[in-house]
Amino acid sequence: MARIGATIDRERSAARIERDVEHLATADYTLSSEAIRRYAYTSVYRNTLDYFRGELELIGFEVSEDAVGTLVAGNRPRGEPAFGVGSHCDSNRNGGKYDGTLGVVTALEVCRLNEELGLGLPLRLISFLEEEGSGFGQMLLGSRIVAQRVTEEDLRERFRATDDGRSFWAHAQEAGYEPERWRECAAVLDGLTGWIEMHIEQARWLQDTGNRIGVVDAIAGYVHADVVVHGRGDHAGATPMDLRLDPTLVLAETALELERLALDAGRGTVGTIGEIEVDPGLINAIASRVRFSLDIRGPQDEAYRGVARDIAAYAARLAEQRGMHAELTERQTLAVTPLDERIVSTLEQAASETGEPYRRMHSGAAHDTMCVADRIPSAMVFVPCKDGISHHPAEQAEPADAALAAEIVLTAIAALQ
Amino acid sequence: MARIGATIDRERSAARIERDVEHLATADYTLSSEAIRRYAYTSVYRNTLDYFRGELELIGFEVSEDAVGTLVAGNRPRGEPAFGVGSHCDSNRNGGKYDGTLGVVTALEVCRLNEELGLGLPLRLISFLEEEGSGFGQMLLGSRIVAQRVTEEDLRERFRATDDGRSFWAHAQEAGYEPERWRECAAVLDGLTGWIEMHIEQARWLQDTGNRIGVVDAIAGYVHADVVVHGRGDHAGATPMDLRLDPTLVLAETALELERLALDAGRGTVGTIGEIEVDPGLINAIASRVRFSLDIRGPQDEAYRGVARDIAAYAARLAEQRGMHAELTERQTLAVTPLDERIVSTLEQAASETGEPYRRMHSGAAHDTMCVADRIPSAMVFVPCKDGISHHPAEQAEPADAALAAEIVLTAIAALQ
Repeated sequence: MARIGATIDRERSAARIERDVEHLATADYTLSSEAIRRYAYTSVYRNTLDYFRGELELIGFEVSEDAVGTLVAGNRPRGEPAFGVGSHCDSNRNGGKYDGTLGVVTALEVCRLNEELGLGLPLRLISFLEEEGSGFGQMLLGSRIVAQRVTEEDLRERFRATDDGRSFWAHAQEAGYEPERWRECAAVLDGLTGWIEMHIEQARWLQDTGNRIGVVDAIAGYVHADVVVHGRGDHAGATPMDLRLDPTLVLAETALELERLALDAGRGTVGTIGEIEVDPGLINAIASRVRFSLDIRGPQDEAYRGVARDIAAYAARLAEQRGMHAELTERQTLAVTPLDERIVSTLEQAASETGEPYRRMHSGAAHDTMCVADRIPSAMVFVPCKDGISHHPAEQAEPADAALAAEIVLTAIAALQ
Repeated sequence: MARIGATIDRERSAARIERDVEHLATADYTLSSEAIRRYAYTSVYRNTLDYFRGELELIGFEVSEDAVGTLVAGNRPRGEPAFGVGSHCDSNRNGGKYDGTLGVVTALEVCRLNEELGLGLPLRLISFLEEEGSGFGQMLLGSRIVAQRVTEEDLRERFRATDDGRSFWAHAQEAGYEPERWRECAAVLDGLTGWIEMHIEQARWLQDTGNRIGVVDAIAGYVHADVVVHGRGDHAGATPMDLRLDPTLVLAETALELERLALDAGRGTVGTIGEIEVDPGLINAIASRVRFSLDIRGPQDEAYRGVARDIAAYAARLAEQRGMHAELTERQTLAVTPLDERIVSTLEQAASETGEPYRRMHSGAAHDTMCVADRIPSAMVFVPCKDGISHHPAEQAEPADAALAAEIVLTAIAALQ
């Protein structure tokens, strides 16, 4: 492996990354003075794309946008082979400075270093449109359009702006794009020989285990579902304990069983009840009905899907034992996205050569890379974020870790040529 | 015990009770066409008082209202000894025909029978103002004023109308009352030798045990409290099971422990979690904080208060074991209201003589009688309501059961003279 790392001034990279991130947190780049709030087709999103365009043109990259607004920049003519780097630069509505943006900024630093060091690697930087769904309530929207995982009806009719209810299509046209050419967005990935996305971890595992870099070998699959337990609403004071059909107790036992099942399944499996809705929700009324959500994930399909099957059966059986009825409705199931072993191990080797602590891991969160990986050999690199806080103004990550990630990514791409 | 029962035409009583109840469910007596919605100082509440006034004057009772609107009618001059019967005739905002109103209608039937049969018992019918709190968010308001369990500041300033935010005081004046004389309302109970309130059970115990009458010997005391568990909000996909501080699991274990403690305590003790609030409440986010309510009641103070103490300690200890913090805040604690043994046993004997199935029991729900019993020897009589449904348009009770209650109450009052 080429000793590129030895030639890199990490402090200078960290300073540039910090400058980019801080600049993109100033007033021109967010709709809110108290958070980063940036989404498709707003003026502040336009300003953000223009900032990257300017920086990329400075180092000689040719910059364009696809038919709906995903930014693509390269140091080779379109169509020629290149290695892809990037992420997204939109934010959650109450977001921080780092989620997504740090990945694009780090990709920009990879491109800068490639030019400065005269490595001559063929690179393509991509910043996907609308990953967070803040504009139209649709996560991974830009990368799903690139992957053609939407329909024309979705774009023309179904996907509506959170702000004014008008269609994605109308908003895209108004912003000067040509949504009728959305099928051409697939070309964004044409000719890519590989893809690496950098991102903050959005969890505290790297921090708590003392690692500066996570080399991501899979993105978790998940089952999202709702369980509704039908009990019997009675007066809380007047109904003896043995005449109750209280659905909150089915919730309680199911929550504990989910914890047990996820721990037993191991292999990165996690299970969470994040939403609980009690009807009627009065202090002096036994609930007539409880709904709760299930988020069950993991990097191994058979493991987390087994937990999902088992918990559904458990809730149904337990409700029946208690004289009630529980039903599970699936919202969405998405399989694990395995990442490319060759890129992953090359990244590990590059990380190892830096002498800094790193770990191979999976991503529990969803990322644009899920829409890239079935066409292009892909991997991801994580950097820690303080206390795992994300999607919040308090989000914090270290530019020095991002500089380290840029060095590792550049080294790996060079090795993969 | 006088064989009054033998002289009563139960079917005629049932028919009159049914007629009264159905009449008071027509358009002039409710603000809603889909439920009974009737509360203080509305035109429909005025009409309801006028209906009772008319019926009571027909049998020669003198009818008046106290300084805020509790209706008082008697067949003896004010100040002379009399036995009190009654309930309330306001409703829940989404109420049914029977809660409260059936008690006043049954009391009216007691008064009618007394006159028709020439028993000459000295009776006073009371219909307390605003038991449900639909007008001003204050339960048992009329009887609390009678019991002087409010302050002038409460009435002038603190108690505000749900509809327009104006004070109780202003509304009472506008309706023609003299709230500045509220201290005189205590006289409503002057000279009472006893008090019996009839009410629907608001639970399913009588129905499920095949009884037509409940003779109530105590009204449960209760602890109302909130538990807040502070966990740590993390990404549901990205946070391993063993790095979580998930407060929903403290809720889950506490809910099951509360069930166990209440069952162990026995003696009518019940415990309920009726409100659950999860923050932020997103499918893909581990909660940062959970709040849930506790409603712990029973007819024996030491039993339900022991459960309240134990569950608070359990939640705190469990949260600590899981690395979190739980705190309990009491909203209100109210002691058991023991009822008068002489009246209770006389009612039991009267019930026994009817040959119909009855049971001695306690009330889990709160009633105006809680504000009467410390001045006047008191008891209550319950009739079943279908499936325990109450505070809902589907509320249903049998006029024949109410007629049976009227017979029992009349017989008991005669025996108590």
